[in-house]
Amino acid sequence: MQFTSEQHLENDVLEREFTLGEIPGILWTPESATEPVPLILLGHPPLGLTKMYPRLAARARRATAEGFAAATIELPGSGDRPRWAAAEQARADLRRTLQAGDPVSDEIIDALILPLVDKAVPEWQTTLDALLALPEIGGPVGYSGGVISIGIRLAVVEPRIVAAGLFAGSFVPRTMFEEARRITIPVHVLLQWDDEGNDRQAALDLFDAFGSKEKTLLANMGGHTGVPQSAGEDAAGFFARHLK
Amino acid sequence: MQFTSEQHLENDVLEREFTLGEIPGILWTPESATEPVPLILLGHPPLGLTKMYPRLAARARRATAEGFAAATIELPGSGDRPRWAAAEQARADLRRTLQAGDPVSDEIIDALILPLVDKAVPEWQTTLDALLALPEIGGPVGYSGGVISIGIRLAVVEPRIVAAGLFAGSFVPRTMFEEARRITIPVHVLLQWDDEGNDRQAALDLFDAFGSKEKTLLANMGGHTGVPQSAGEDAAGFFARHLK
Repeated sequence: MQFTSEQHLENDVLEREFTLGEIPGILWTPESATEPVPLILLGHPPLGLTKMYPRLAARARRATAEGFAAATIELPGSGDRPRWAAAEQARADLRRTLQAGDPVSDEIIDALILPLVDKAVPEWQTTLDALLALPEIGGPVGYSGGVISIGIRLAVVEPRIVAAGLFAGSFVPRTMFEEARRITIPVHVLLQWDDEGNDRQAALDLFDAFGSKEKTLLANMGGHTGVPQSAGEDAAGFFARHLK
Repeated sequence: MQFTSEQHLENDVLEREFTLGEIPGILWTPESATEPVPLILLGHPPLGLTKMYPRLAARARRATAEGFAAATIELPGSGDRPRWAAAEQARADLRRTLQAGDPVSDEIIDALILPLVDKAVPEWQTTLDALLALPEIGGPVGYSGGVISIGIRLAVVEPRIVAAGLFAGSFVPRTMFEEARRITIPVHVLLQWDDEGNDRQAALDLFDAFGSKEKTLLANMGGHTGVPQSAGEDAAGFFARHLK
């Protein structure tokens, strides 16, 4: 892990950009912490870190204010990272389907999401190795937001993640329901009731499928980007309960 | 409104029992408040104030700690208040149906709930008149919990109530869905995902029906009485946002 920039932000936040092999990322830490702090991994949609930066930085500021470190990485195929042909094809198929007003088939969803999950999850795990090797970061570790299927896979395969805050706002391949049943860590699921690009009933079925004894669904009015501020407070409460 | 007892509880809480005509009730206020405070009406199931007291007092303590007054009244037909034949009949029909493992018919639900709503709502409104006449209580007013159909009707007909925290844990007559569509105040709905006596899909449909632009559904694992402590914190946040 190579730090490539360092910025001291207001409210005691140190923001550092890093690269880990070919993966760029950002780490935020509460600057005056005297002990190793818990960590929240910030997931995000595959729109590129530059575009997502304002929202990620806002979530990171909330995390550091609570005494957590927060980190994120560029997803494979996003930002300046190399595309791969199958993903481009899947995105084009999705665009065409949505423009035609047709239902999005399982084939398109699988092609869009499964390779992304397969590539992104090991990268998150490598990032976690590097982050936990830093003296200022201790644990426990939570995962928050982004492509929900990545969060599901991570919650299943990565034992260092002890709590997951998931956003039911992206297509979910059928096979992910089986993985969801294998999750045992506490899960907090956010659902936008009128999310344009999200099947509400599928989201409710997915919530039902999670194997966790402790799981919470928080549904708010509005579309995909209309998550109210109070939802951030609720999620903060969830991580405070499980990471402190 | 006649106060019949007065108790100084720890943490700055004054608890007073009262009667309003034939209706007994309890009022909790933050003792050292120097200005009129907002008010939360505490709904509860028709099991009698004596039985419900511990849970009501805990909710009232949370409310007073946030700077609110809290009040509750005995429901018609509960506690020492006179029964009426139709309600007794409806309860007996429900018991028999549940024991037989049969589905609960709309007729039984209507007979059980609608007369209770028709009687209880004007009593809550009379109580509100009396409470708001007290110098220590100002407003705004929220309604919280209890029989959800009572909360729905109150939210529709009582303009002094500006926010409602509802518990989707009791049978809902079909006609209440129409009333739900007429609600415009912010609504926070609590759902226990595995509530034994509650139809989950009906609860989700009811949430969908609420006409409010601002509504939140919070679902937690567990049965009717398994509401986690965090749900109380979320509800407190909801009332803090809307009553302060």
